[in-house]
Parts: sequence; C-alpha cells; structure tokens
Amino acid sequence: MNSLTKYQEVFLDYLEDQNYSKEPKGLYAPIDYILKLGGKRLRPILVLLASESFGTDFKKALPASLSVEIFHNFSLVHDDIMDEAPLRRGKPTVHKKWDVNTGILSGDAMLIMAYQQLHTYPPQQAQQLHQLFSKTAIQICEGQQYDVEFENRNAVSEAEYLQMIEYKTAVLVACALQMGAIIAEASEENQKKIYEFGRLLGLAFQLQDDYLDAFGNPETFGKQVGGDILENKKTFLYIKANEQGDEKQKDELSRFFSVETHKNEDKIHQVKKIFEATGAKKSTQKAIEEYTNKAITVLKSIEMDEQAKKHLLDFSEWLMTRNV
Amino acid sequence: MNSLTKYQEVFLDYLEDQNYSKEPKGLYAPIDYILKLGGKRLRPILVLLASESFGTDFKKALPASLSVEIFHNFSLVHDDIMDEAPLRRGKPTVHKKWDVNTGILSGDAMLIMAYQQLHTYPPQQAQQLHQLFSKTAIQICEGQQYDVEFENRNAVSEAEYLQMIEYKTAVLVACALQMGAIIAEASEENQKKIYEFGRLLGLAFQLQDDYLDAFGNPETFGKQVGGDILENKKTFLYIKANEQGDEKQKDELSRFFSVETHKNEDKIHQVKKIFEATGAKKSTQKAIEEYTNKAITVLKSIEMDEQAKKHLLDFSEWLMTRNV
Repeated sequence: MNSLTKYQEVFLDYLEDQNYSKEPKGLYAPIDYILKLGGKRLRPILVLLASESFGTDFKKALPASLSVEIFHNFSLVHDDIMDEAPLRRGKPTVHKKWDVNTGILSGDAMLIMAYQQLHTYPPQQAQQLHQLFSKTAIQICEGQQYDVEFENRNAVSEAEYLQMIEYKTAVLVACALQMGAIIAEASEENQKKIYEFGRLLGLAFQLQDDYLDAFGNPETFGKQVGGDILENKKTFLYIKANEQGDEKQKDELSRFFSVETHKNEDKIHQVKKIFEATGAKKSTQKAIEEYTNKAITVLKSIEMDEQAKKHLLDFSEWLMTRNV
Repeated sequence: MNSLTKYQEVFLDYLEDQNYSKEPKGLYAPIDYILKLGGKRLRPILVLLASESFGTDFKKALPASLSVEIFHNFSLVHDDIMDEAPLRRGKPTVHKKWDVNTGILSGDAMLIMAYQQLHTYPPQQAQQLHQLFSKTAIQICEGQQYDVEFENRNAVSEAEYLQMIEYKTAVLVACALQMGAIIAEASEENQKKIYEFGRLLGLAFQLQDDYLDAFGNPETFGKQVGGDILENKKTFLYIKANEQGDEKQKDELSRFFSVETHKNEDKIHQVKKIFEATGAKKSTQKAIEEYTNKAITVLKSIEMDEQAKKHLLDFSEWLMTRNV
C-alpha cells in the first residue's frame, strides 16, 4: 500500500533524527538499539493515518506517533525480560545483549520518553493525549499481568482471554488512532468511533496472530509455525478446542499441553489436528471475520472524507489478509 | 515539627483514600504494599509545604504530592531489584515478597500512576508539572545508571559523584518543591529559586546520608552503622579519603574495598579510622555545611511570606540535624 509506505518513510526519518546517542551510553544505547531494530511500525502509522483522515497535516502527529512507538518498544523490552525471551525480530533482546538491569532501567527511561513526546503539544491537546495514553498504558500493564496469571492456570474462559488480548494488544491500536483524531481536533463522537474501530481491529489482529501461528504458511510466515503450541500457550485456538472438544479430545490436548519436551513436529501436527477436529480452527476464523466486519461497520459510520475512509478500509483489509 | 506533622497526616489520609485493592490483584497488591510501608514521606511533604509557602491552599497540591511519592516508590521497587536488596524499611522488598517479574510490572504501573495524578490539574498547570516531572524522572534514571557504572569502576571523581547524587537524589527534592510552587502559581523566578534551594538541600541531604552511615550514632541510627563500608560503596567519604590520603592510606583503603568477607566489625573500625586520618570525615562535614548554607542563602533571597520562609528554614534545619 502506497499511502502506508509514505507514512512509514516519514516516520522512520523522524525517528532517525532523534538523538539517542547521549550519555550515559549504558542507558541510551539499548534504547537506540531496540528502536532501530525494525518492525512494521503499525502503531505510529495508525497515528499518522488517523490524523490525516480527520483532515490535519499528518506531520503534526509525528511526536505522538513516536510516543506510541517508544511505548510499544518499552513494553517489549520489559515483557521480554519477564518471558525470558532471547530473541526479538531475530536479534538478541536487550536483556540478553546487555543484562536484566539494563533492560529494566532503559525500559523505564523509554516510558518517560514516550510521555515527553506528548508534552510537546499545546496544553489542551496534551491533556487529552496524556489522559488517553495513561489509561491505555495501565490497561496494557493489567493485560500483561492477566497473561502471566493465565499461564499458571488450568482453565481460562473465552471472555477472560478476550479481555486479556483487548488490554494487551487492542487498546494500543485504538489509542494510536484516537491520538491522531485528537491532534486533528475531531469531534468527541468521531474520537469514540475511531477508538472502537481500533479496538475491534486490534482484537481481530491478535486472533489472527493466534491463527497464523498454527495455520500460517511456513513459506511466508516469518516465525516458526507452531511456536505457540510448543510453548503450551493458551491461545484462542486452545480455548475453543477445550470448549468444543469431546472428553477424549480435551484429554489429549491437556496431555500435549502438560509436557515441555514432546517430539516437536509430531506435537504440532497432532495439536493442529485437534484444533481442526474440534472446530476450533473454524471458530477462530469466524471470530476474526466477525471482529473485522464489526470494525468496518463502525468505520463506515464515521463522518470523514470518503477518500480517507477508503485508506483506513484498505489498511484493515491489508492487515487482515497478511500472512506474516 | 508541628507543621510537618500536619502535612504528613493530611497526606497519609489522602493516600489511605486511594483505592489500590483493584483487579488484577497480582498487579495492585504490591503497589498497595510498598506505598503503605511507611517512610518519612519527605518528598510529598515538600510539595505541600512549598504550595502553602507560595500562598495557596496546600490541599490543591495533594495529587502532585502523591505523584512524587508514587514515583519515589516506583524507583525504590526497581532499584531494589537491580541491587538485589532483600529488605526495604525492615520489610521484604516487592521482588522478594512476590517475584522479580511482579516487581518490574507493578513498578511500571506505578510510574504511569504517578503521571495520572498530574493529569488532574488544569491543562496549563498540568503541562508545566508534566514537563518538570519527566525531566526529573529521566535524570533519576541517568543517576541510577551512573550509580551502577561507578560500582564497577575503580576511580570516581568528586565531580562525577556529585553529579550522580544530584541526579539520583537531589533533583526529586527540587522537583517536589517546584511542583508546589507551580500549583501556587509562583513567578518563574521564584520557581527557579525554590528548585535551586531543593537541589542544594538534596545534595546536603545525600552527603549527610553518606556521613551518618559511617559516623551516625548506633543507638539512634535506624540501620546498621557501616553498611556502606561493608558493601564497598564509593561514597563521598571514600572519594575524599582517596583524594586526600597518602599512598599507604590509599592502599589500605583499596585493600579493604576489594574484599567481600573481611571480618565485619574490624573492617568498619579500620575504614572509619582511615576516613578520619585522611580528613575525609572533616571534608564531608564541611561539604554538608556548605551545601546547607548555600541552600539557605538561596531560600532567603526568595520573595515569600516570612512565616512560610521560616517553616522552610526550620525544615532545612530539622533535616540537617537529623540522626536517622
């Protein structure tokens, strides 16, 4: 998509212009490292796209887009410590390249730096941006806490899972879009609607992540297919299989998910078969479609330039037909 | 001091009124625990005291005072992880009572909650408070990074040490006072002066901490006298002893500070003798006095109600004659 490339390029230029080679290097070098490690830059693009959609020069939204991206990377650095993850985007995580203490402290500084970007707006606008941002950031902490707790629990309901991914993933997508709307001085009603569009799209996005992890095309999927299965992660597929499976299927699934070192390829193969046989695969596809359609319905109800609306629709479609 | 007791009581009531028994408990219970663990509440008291000194109802400053206290406790939780400290105020640290991941995540949430308190002010004031707070918070991260780096370095100069404690301790004292001034709508000049008073007083306070750790009265000093010596911490006393000692004294000191398990009481005794013989003890006392006097000179130059000024002077004197 051409318009997305435009936003991405301008954002990356803006990011490059920031000076993160400050003293003490031990604090700032890891920040520079993680921010320049790449990624799709979806969240900052959404801030820019939304601001232009509501009729303002999207360059005004650059500090807010950077705020969201710094925050997202802060959460990755701290989450990677908690998950003991060695790799991020194929490169060593901050706490592996440096150490855990560096990851904690550089992460803290990033959270503050994310706020600092918002301080650059005029007071009234800054106030709205700060309140939205903090509310979202707290929800993301709560989502991460639920995620950690669910790992150590046997049963997680669909509703609990959906709330967790809403907090952990969807609210930041929603926040990014509303920030763009705030900067463009969109009406309160439009702000609410674009937020809701983002929340629904974010849910669809995360469910698709779950789906692709098991059923993505190994040739185009960036990560190892079946990674969640090997890590015994209770994704939407797992919850649906447990909800819809018969006793035998549930027993089998529970057996597979209680061992760490089952023969890898075989485990992935067998669990995927259960996901299909129980109808969990179909239910997940259906849920993705439903959330995407709901998102699009909300989007269509927003009063905005038709061309801009088309861009957001294209973006949703692009996002939901991705295979990475 | 009566007036301080007044601020402290109102602050503690305000803190009690906050609802931190929210879900998920795994996230909020540690926050409730650390915030109610006690402490002198010096920083929030300073916010309240400054706001009243510049002529406003100090109750207006309660959210800002809570912000500073939540931030201070956030930094304790994360620092205690980095220092692997088992105890804080005589009780288990958050990462010991729960675990490291809980300490990281609850700390993150506290940093966000500190900002949220500032969002409650009118936009123009909030803008000033946010900018001051973020600048201070980043400096505190930088100070912590320098502190960590100095532990692994042989030589630390006096200037480097002073910058580290300025960032790690003094700027938050200064920030607390300026926040009170912002809320009372004090002039920019007065804001600058009260900040400078706080910065100098904060430096004196930290140097006194270093001093008392070695030369405090064991009967009134809350912690073990000589704790810094046992941990081989490069405090102001150590730096001065290295600066002023002869070769033999420096060798001895370096020998004491290179071992972990020297016989405790003897090590403390010998190192204190070196601090005295090299004149480091005297130099530290002198530095404390100088910073305190500089702080008082700045305070005296501020245009404010004489009664209020007297309170701040009393506070400085109380702070500097403490033995805990």
